[in-house]
Amino acid sequence: MTRRSALLGAAAFGAGVAANRVVGKREPGSSGASPDARLVPFHGSRQAGIATPPPEFLSFAAFDLTSSSIDDLRDVLGEWTAAAATLAVGQPYEPRAESADVAPTDTGEAMGVGPSRLTITIGFGPSLFGLGGKDRFGLGRKQPRSLSPLPPFRGESLDPDRCGGDLCIQACADDPQVTFHAVHVLTRLASGAATLRWSQSGFGRTSSTSRSQSTPRNLMGFKDGTHHIRAEDGEAMDEFVWVQPSDGPAWMVGGSYLILRRIQMLFDVWDSTSLEGQEQVIGRRKQSGAPLGGQEEYDTVDLEAQRDGELVIPLDAHIRLASPKQNAGQRILRRGYSYSEPTEPGSGQIDAGLFFISFQRDPERQFIPIQRRLAGSDALNHHTLNTASAIFACPPGIRPGGFIGERLFT
Amino acid sequence: MTRRSALLGAAAFGAGVAANRVVGKREPGSSGASPDARLVPFHGSRQAGIATPPPEFLSFAAFDLTSSSIDDLRDVLGEWTAAAATLAVGQPYEPRAESADVAPTDTGEAMGVGPSRLTITIGFGPSLFGLGGKDRFGLGRKQPRSLSPLPPFRGESLDPDRCGGDLCIQACADDPQVTFHAVHVLTRLASGAATLRWSQSGFGRTSSTSRSQSTPRNLMGFKDGTHHIRAEDGEAMDEFVWVQPSDGPAWMVGGSYLILRRIQMLFDVWDSTSLEGQEQVIGRRKQSGAPLGGQEEYDTVDLEAQRDGELVIPLDAHIRLASPKQNAGQRILRRGYSYSEPTEPGSGQIDAGLFFISFQRDPERQFIPIQRRLAGSDALNHHTLNTASAIFACPPGIRPGGFIGERLFT
Repeated sequence: MTRRSALLGAAAFGAGVAANRVVGKREPGSSGASPDARLVPFHGSRQAGIATPPPEFLSFAAFDLTSSSIDDLRDVLGEWTAAAATLAVGQPYEPRAESADVAPTDTGEAMGVGPSRLTITIGFGPSLFGLGGKDRFGLGRKQPRSLSPLPPFRGESLDPDRCGGDLCIQACADDPQVTFHAVHVLTRLASGAATLRWSQSGFGRTSSTSRSQSTPRNLMGFKDGTHHIRAEDGEAMDEFVWVQPSDGPAWMVGGSYLILRRIQMLFDVWDSTSLEGQEQVIGRRKQSGAPLGGQEEYDTVDLEAQRDGELVIPLDAHIRLASPKQNAGQRILRRGYSYSEPTEPGSGQIDAGLFFISFQRDPERQFIPIQRRLAGSDALNHHTLNTASAIFACPPGIRPGGFIGERLFT
Repeated sequence: MTRRSALLGAAAFGAGVAANRVVGKREPGSSGASPDARLVPFHGSRQAGIATPPPEFLSFAAFDLTSSSIDDLRDVLGEWTAAAATLAVGQPYEPRAESADVAPTDTGEAMGVGPSRLTITIGFGPSLFGLGGKDRFGLGRKQPRSLSPLPPFRGESLDPDRCGGDLCIQACADDPQVTFHAVHVLTRLASGAATLRWSQSGFGRTSSTSRSQSTPRNLMGFKDGTHHIRAEDGEAMDEFVWVQPSDGPAWMVGGSYLILRRIQMLFDVWDSTSLEGQEQVIGRRKQSGAPLGGQEEYDTVDLEAQRDGELVIPLDAHIRLASPKQNAGQRILRRGYSYSEPTEPGSGQIDAGLFFISFQRDPERQFIPIQRRLAGSDALNHHTLNTASAIFACPPGIRPGGFIGERLFT
């Protein structure tokens, strides 16, 4: 028993004698709307929340480990696994008998709301394997080659307080109270071993990862993600998303690398740009989502088409530079959300944008070269600013009785 | 024509020749889900968004006027009125013929999403009637007695950058993209006359203003607002919410005073409090919402009940101190939302709480004495911190052809 689990045990049992489950029975309808009973299975060979069609809301949190005990780390991952499995079916997390004279383990704000398609995806940052030259947990030799801090990109303006992290939680659901609750409960469970480093909430998924979903608009008003990888396309998922046995290390096979970028939209400039100017920046029509030169959203993007001797889709248009054709055929699975925050005092500007999340099999072949190309010449750079960045290794899924990332510890 | 409308006119027409409506036809289904066609009428004798049963999301924004021309003020209110009426039916706001070579008036991100029960409620801050002893717009003599900056309350820790404002917009809808869009478009329309001072988004309404809604939970996990005023109770609405002819001034009759308080929840302390301790703080059971001593949520709150010689509902319990019985029979219409923001770097704490909004006929008789009592002795004060505050006068509703607050200008 580690010092931390002793502490947690004391908190849970110390003051109490009675052990009745006084909270926690599900209470449908208490949230005001009908409880949303749709659920996404937690256990499986892949973590949920990657190929899963994105629900409408996100709460993301990154943590710094404050303990240097590998037992504490394993303990946190075990508790997170148990809690995530319970919350995914819409139940409060009550691993121990609860009584009225101790603090509830589950914080209670999602009681009766229902699972609402909640997924909780967990990842490990590069710093878990080494920080400042120190192998904190003796895991250094297990660090995947692909899990390195991202290189600097041109034009970015990163806030270090909103970058990185040893561990991360991505909670997605159709009710923001459910995603908030998931991060709230897991943050509390990590107490004594890991502390919240940064967090971000999001709404209005800005991508489709399934053919069952139509294309949403981002906060610039454009349809976003028309030509993304779809989860139904197993071949593309294996080629571009899931880590394969040949990639290694063994503990990551069946997992994926998560990259996130907080992309602030500079609305003062964007909103003053003519409709045609906006469409030239993106390379698509605003209303229909059709590529320039096309008629309908799903029309083929013709990068060669010319009119009056000029390219129909400009050289610096976003869809040209992000196109697989311009990136050695590489693709990524995007799964981002819009965000909106209180305006910065004195700025007079709306503070909002895209909390970009992508999953890929190999950042070095996929995200990094694509982003380098975009950072170099994308016309969209005049209208956006990258303000946060992180990379995490999301291990494969968990079978009942296991815990997330367990193969890392064997 | 004012300098500002000349400028706006130039922006809208200046570069353009063609005048086709290239954007703006509604395009159902483009947002990924079915468009939400439910709508709340904008015009009427009351502003929508007060008695209206609260939808799930909020975007709130406060503005500082940068122009000192009353014509600019009237012009902004006229544009806001026209835009709000259009957005309320789910249409993009395109007051002028649009063309591809000018910036679209409507920013476009809500295209195809549907009205989603959008309401836009507009209010005037005390500073509109005088700031630093200066009557900026010649409106000083029309300032309602009830529209004064709130007095300081014990224990509050207000951030002046998130308080006050000359004008405010409360946008509520069942889709956060719709509320974001409403504030985005109206902020842009105010450009040159008013600038964004602060903003706040919210989710998960924390009250019911209609018997058709059941009671939601706040982020502390408790059902909130069991005994609030319901819009169906016309007598209570007249007594406690709507400004009456006897109150004056004439331009506010049929309106209401909006008060907001940003109430941060101190989860580190709260989450470590025993279930019984939490229930004593609130005065209700966490799971059922029943008042202490009762069985069911709607059971009568018995403030006199004793057990073993002690009050069942403690002297400092929140529901006792907020009870009309303890406040000369006064009540307020609460219509707040939960909020969640990125964690403050280095704090390790979740930054979330309640964005409290209430409407009342007379703050001096209602909110102020209630809040004074709560600030003095509410047990909840150990678990919360008031970090922002504002008051606005929301004038009555608008008939087609009129504009919000027009009676102020006659």
